[in-house]
Amino acid sequence: MKIVKIPMATVSRLSIYSRYLIKLADTGTETVSSGGIADSVGVTPAQVRKDLAYFGEFGVRGVGYHVKDLISHIRNILNLNNEWRLALVGAGRLGRALTMYKGFRERGFVIDCVFDSDPEKIGGVFEGMEILASDRIREVARRQKADIGVICVPAAQAQDVADALVDSGVKAILNFAPMNLTVPMSIHVQNVDLAMHLEVLAFQMGEGRHA
Amino acid sequence: MKIVKIPMATVSRLSIYSRYLIKLADTGTETVSSGGIADSVGVTPAQVRKDLAYFGEFGVRGVGYHVKDLISHIRNILNLNNEWRLALVGAGRLGRALTMYKGFRERGFVIDCVFDSDPEKIGGVFEGMEILASDRIREVARRQKADIGVICVPAAQAQDVADALVDSGVKAILNFAPMNLTVPMSIHVQNVDLAMHLEVLAFQMGEGRHA
Repeated sequence: MKIVKIPMATVSRLSIYSRYLIKLADTGTETVSSGGIADSVGVTPAQVRKDLAYFGEFGVRGVGYHVKDLISHIRNILNLNNEWRLALVGAGRLGRALTMYKGFRERGFVIDCVFDSDPEKIGGVFEGMEILASDRIREVARRQKADIGVICVPAAQAQDVADALVDSGVKAILNFAPMNLTVPMSIHVQNVDLAMHLEVLAFQMGEGRHA
Repeated sequence: MKIVKIPMATVSRLSIYSRYLIKLADTGTETVSSGGIADSVGVTPAQVRKDLAYFGEFGVRGVGYHVKDLISHIRNILNLNNEWRLALVGAGRLGRALTMYKGFRERGFVIDCVFDSDPEKIGGVFEGMEILASDRIREVARRQKADIGVICVPAAQAQDVADALVDSGVKAILNFAPMNLTVPMSIHVQNVDLAMHLEVLAFQMGEGRHA
């Protein structure tokens, strides 16, 4: 089998396509064209076909894609058939918003331990989970077999937290702290940088103003 | 002057470079090489030079970049010398986390009105701002001259909220609802899709497992 490197942008779009396909399936729609998917997510039909072609021939000429089959293919590609266990560090407002976010659990991502370094927060309860001291990350996240660490602490603490998560055996980190983490090559990191998104918008608005 | 289209990925990286440069300036560092910037944000030195070259010649051979000059250049490029006014819709946990996020205000993004459709929340106070009914978005966001709308409502309500924000005169939308919004071409949209980031990690972890 030929090994083809899948662009991360394709992987991101598959995630978005599947969200739309699940909505279609919920309304009883059985087939969809690449144009239908493209319109709903704001890309070209050619892009949809190219993204899906990385993983084989799913479409049927003149019919399009079978919605349920395509959902199941994408879930396979994205490894969403197992449950992924998350260890969340930082029990502030963002951390709480994330533990309550239904979209995670629906997609198989389950937060099952929460840590904080603030003595006022430790021992409190967050969505049914006791908030544990951050110096227990290595012990508890390892015991719970956490796959993904979620970092919701201020930038100054983020590297220490990342080190502890890596030691505990997580294989990936979702980082909300506005800084670049130093982790071993084998650990996958996604940074969610909220100020960056606003700055991109500021740039785009400026382009319009000067055009 | 030649018109060059700047890739959005470059704009995103400029935002990240500037965060690092501000940290350098705070510690009194006066110059930095492209390699220094590259190491700290996890890209190649060639990428840093290429990104900055879109906007002119900032570097000095053998010296590198003057940190403060480069910060000020990037702030100009990203239009961060004015204050941008944000209208936030959805006073749930995520909305509250965002109103408290210091990173926004530090970078010139000020949330100055908050809306919700829940009668239990309307009239409450969020970081000193009264939570207003969502049916007042058109009137109030227009009067406050909001530049950017921030959508923190469930997917089912997001399009109606986007329509009201567009009517109010915002020029850009930061969308946390997991769906694609339909807006006029002139409105810039950035989607923050938290489940998507986790699904990209799930894909990457799967690649590692099967490799």
